[in-house]
Amino acid sequence: MSLPLRIIPLGGCGEIGKNMTAFEYGQNILLIDCGIMFPENDMLGIDFIIPDWKYLREKRDQIRGIVVTHGHEDHTGGLPYLLKDMPDLPVFATRLTRGLIEVKLRHHKVLDQARLQTIEAGGHLELGPFGLEFFRVAHSIPDGVGVGLTTPAGLVVHTGDFKFDHTPVDGKPTDFAKLAEFGGRGVLVLMSDSTNADQPGTTPSERVVDAAFTQVFSQAKGRIIVGTFASLISRVQQVANAAARHNRKLAFAGTSMLENVKMSQKLGYLDLPSDLIVRLEDTQRMPSDRVVIMTTGTQGEPSSVLARVAIGQHAQIKAERGDTVVMSAHPIPGNEEMVNRTINRLFQRGANVLYDPIAQVHVSGHASQEEQKLMLNLVRPDYFIPIHGELRHLRAHEALARQVGVAPQNIFVLENGYTVEFHEGEGRIGERVPGGYVYIDGSGVGDIGPAVLREREVLGRDGFIIAILHRDPDTGELIDLPEIISKGFIHPEDGEDVLSGATEVVTRLSSDPSLTDKALQDRIKDKLSEYVYHETKRRPMIIPVLS
Amino acid sequence: MSLPLRIIPLGGCGEIGKNMTAFEYGQNILLIDCGIMFPENDMLGIDFIIPDWKYLREKRDQIRGIVVTHGHEDHTGGLPYLLKDMPDLPVFATRLTRGLIEVKLRHHKVLDQARLQTIEAGGHLELGPFGLEFFRVAHSIPDGVGVGLTTPAGLVVHTGDFKFDHTPVDGKPTDFAKLAEFGGRGVLVLMSDSTNADQPGTTPSERVVDAAFTQVFSQAKGRIIVGTFASLISRVQQVANAAARHNRKLAFAGTSMLENVKMSQKLGYLDLPSDLIVRLEDTQRMPSDRVVIMTTGTQGEPSSVLARVAIGQHAQIKAERGDTVVMSAHPIPGNEEMVNRTINRLFQRGANVLYDPIAQVHVSGHASQEEQKLMLNLVRPDYFIPIHGELRHLRAHEALARQVGVAPQNIFVLENGYTVEFHEGEGRIGERVPGGYVYIDGSGVGDIGPAVLREREVLGRDGFIIAILHRDPDTGELIDLPEIISKGFIHPEDGEDVLSGATEVVTRLSSDPSLTDKALQDRIKDKLSEYVYHETKRRPMIIPVLS
Repeated sequence: MSLPLRIIPLGGCGEIGKNMTAFEYGQNILLIDCGIMFPENDMLGIDFIIPDWKYLREKRDQIRGIVVTHGHEDHTGGLPYLLKDMPDLPVFATRLTRGLIEVKLRHHKVLDQARLQTIEAGGHLELGPFGLEFFRVAHSIPDGVGVGLTTPAGLVVHTGDFKFDHTPVDGKPTDFAKLAEFGGRGVLVLMSDSTNADQPGTTPSERVVDAAFTQVFSQAKGRIIVGTFASLISRVQQVANAAARHNRKLAFAGTSMLENVKMSQKLGYLDLPSDLIVRLEDTQRMPSDRVVIMTTGTQGEPSSVLARVAIGQHAQIKAERGDTVVMSAHPIPGNEEMVNRTINRLFQRGANVLYDPIAQVHVSGHASQEEQKLMLNLVRPDYFIPIHGELRHLRAHEALARQVGVAPQNIFVLENGYTVEFHEGEGRIGERVPGGYVYIDGSGVGDIGPAVLREREVLGRDGFIIAILHRDPDTGELIDLPEIISKGFIHPEDGEDVLSGATEVVTRLSSDPSLTDKALQDRIKDKLSEYVYHETKRRPMIIPVLS
Repeated sequence: MSLPLRIIPLGGCGEIGKNMTAFEYGQNILLIDCGIMFPENDMLGIDFIIPDWKYLREKRDQIRGIVVTHGHEDHTGGLPYLLKDMPDLPVFATRLTRGLIEVKLRHHKVLDQARLQTIEAGGHLELGPFGLEFFRVAHSIPDGVGVGLTTPAGLVVHTGDFKFDHTPVDGKPTDFAKLAEFGGRGVLVLMSDSTNADQPGTTPSERVVDAAFTQVFSQAKGRIIVGTFASLISRVQQVANAAARHNRKLAFAGTSMLENVKMSQKLGYLDLPSDLIVRLEDTQRMPSDRVVIMTTGTQGEPSSVLARVAIGQHAQIKAERGDTVVMSAHPIPGNEEMVNRTINRLFQRGANVLYDPIAQVHVSGHASQEEQKLMLNLVRPDYFIPIHGELRHLRAHEALARQVGVAPQNIFVLENGYTVEFHEGEGRIGERVPGGYVYIDGSGVGDIGPAVLREREVLGRDGFIIAILHRDPDTGELIDLPEIISKGFIHPEDGEDVLSGATEVVTRLSSDPSLTDKALQDRIKDKLSEYVYHETKRRPMIIPVLS
């Protein structure tokens, strides 16, 4: 008797199925990826977000393992937290991906007990009822794979992050033959990367960045500083090649980039001549036209190397007139303003800053519309589930799938936590499970919820006013004048009138000794709020304290 | 004896000379534009920003007037505040611009005493030593002008916001002949719009939007909702034309859009057949395929019509399956995330959402690189001051000016408040004057400064902890247990241990009755902060209250 196969996208903030996907067949669960996301701008104080795997927790002993498709943060970053929850969970990854995961787990002190296993593109693996075949996909990091998942309910193809780059930096294009072979075998469901589903045409090859770098390196007179993601290993190789060609030495800034580079080099995924690399501190004594520095911080994060260089607060890197800074990454949506600010500040210091569209120093790692259609036509699935994108991207991807002939009723545009069940060749939406996300703030995992965020929003927008009252416990009368403290509400000098008015309001409200403490607090909240709004059109948080 | 001419870009947040520019010759000052800007994402709680005209305040009697180049918010929105400061300042604007200013001043109850005067493209005006010639510029609103400013020091050309649209919606292209004539006469300085200086090629004509609308209107089965800026009058005309062609009725939502449309129609800048327009409430009873609604909210502002439609909280507009929403505006940098969220939510309600790059339903109103070079070559100035853009745009514009042959030392890339002086044909950077911006928060103008914003940042990121202590005034000993109140810091249940730990820390610190109140408060701030960071890696604001 066959059972239904359940597919559940889990986690991703705004994006769907980006950070984790679960496949469930009977008492067997397989996971793909476990990444982190940047918080949105109104998730105040949140450092990042991990998938909510509440649903999986009680089914721990059914989980056969987790496959990680490639070594980028948004696919690996949640693993340390997952492995704190489920220490003995087998993790399957290709050599480079595994190496980068090791770096991460070591930081979190969970490497020792981790059960990591190496897989390879072209290889296969049996896990309970699941047969896994891994196929090469080109992306902006080497050694990425997609997964062909044979289940009793049919064959599922999960692309991971991909583009159809015919000339990738590592010379290993996406495995067209394997995709076509899946197509010939008959694919029940395709799950495919939707990131660029609103971008027409084809994403340029990583090679075009080489041309841009050649131009930059030919023209630059001073130091060259290249910003990119710490895990964009292909870009590191490209910059290293350009540096070697133009007789410059290369240094790295930022721990995460340094460690990723070391690991990639050790594993043979980065080819760096031994005399090319210098230490960051050595660059200060070298002629500036002999130096390239690679660093992180292209998202404008205030604590990043590049942001500190931009405000002149990095000990070893000074950006000066004549220097060239290359922003070799696109802003993640929501980060544009901070990125632009960093660029403007670097210009202010006299550096020349190159960024797309000024120069094509970055290309996306994700397939555009023509590639997405090619994927659909190679795999020719019965069903299609667009993943890795916001709802608008999934909808655009849905439109493409219709164009290439997937039956409209066979396309499932899901949200995180929605279940699709496939049984005897038929797919349908099933029950919904918890599929949100968990906030990481400082060392806290999930101890911040919507209520705390709402408080932060109010405090961040208009600050607060505390009114401290001393009542005589016997008579209920005020013992002395209420004390008013405010922060983030108004400049104390400009606000003198408003604040002394607030004292009067509170004093007046407190003149009725028959009010209970609770009733008085409620009245102060209402009336003081009203008064303050009338005076300032602001709504600070009002906190009456009776003591 | 000739005097120096001083040019001072004032105001603009991130952008330079965007919202106001001052020209000073002897005891005579002329102003161009007075606009508002959106706050940046970390200016918490700020509604918008106006230029800081501190420098002008003491020179009020030298100011001959202000010219407003066109009717967009970022060039008109500060006027009500300026006129509250300087009620009798003459304001010069073309008919439509003046009409839109009147709408704004009426709202702020400063219309009655305002001294508005109408100018026209092709016209001229003498103001003290200044001779002003106004020339037509194409932009995304009709009746925009640039200014040719003849001064004893030479001729200055200020483009305002412009593009070289050969087929603008109102049929009135930029006045090439006048620009060439200025060039022939000899131009001392060109000040030109840099907004798109990092965009190669030519900005598409507003007409391409017509083609996109035709396609949208031909295919849409249900209601069409078009979002755009309230002052994008050309777009209103285009939507009205498409509605008429496709036998739909048009309604407007949002006061600002409604009032701008009324004024533009009254003045003859909008041609709306009388049977085309219906009231918003009437659309609810009409077949949905006969309806177009135009509205504001393309920037994702939570209180806007479109954002409320997206969360299902607009009384008269419901977005449903079959409806088409057109985002006919680009996100202003910093707003991308809120815009995307609005789009995703509209998809969630079943509507189809069209936005660039899915469909070319918006084009920029600003010149791209080829147009900027054409402007430089028409005017052939001795000096060049790129304006209207962030520093990165000004630098890109500078590079273009060098390409077309402006001497590098004759290009001034300024920041707000920097002065350039021109004397006997020579330009040089002069003194710096206050040129920042003023925050508007609720009804407060400038009562929020950096200190309050820093408090909001801390509060928004990690909340606060208040520790209330009662000391015996005589002995300095604690009378009872300290009271700890926290908001925005941690979920009270999850944080129980941390908060009771905080009580212990405060109690222990207070055990020394010899400490002065001040010393005790300082110690609580330090030690409680340390304790909380150790436990949570967060830094809430610590407020000790001794009472």
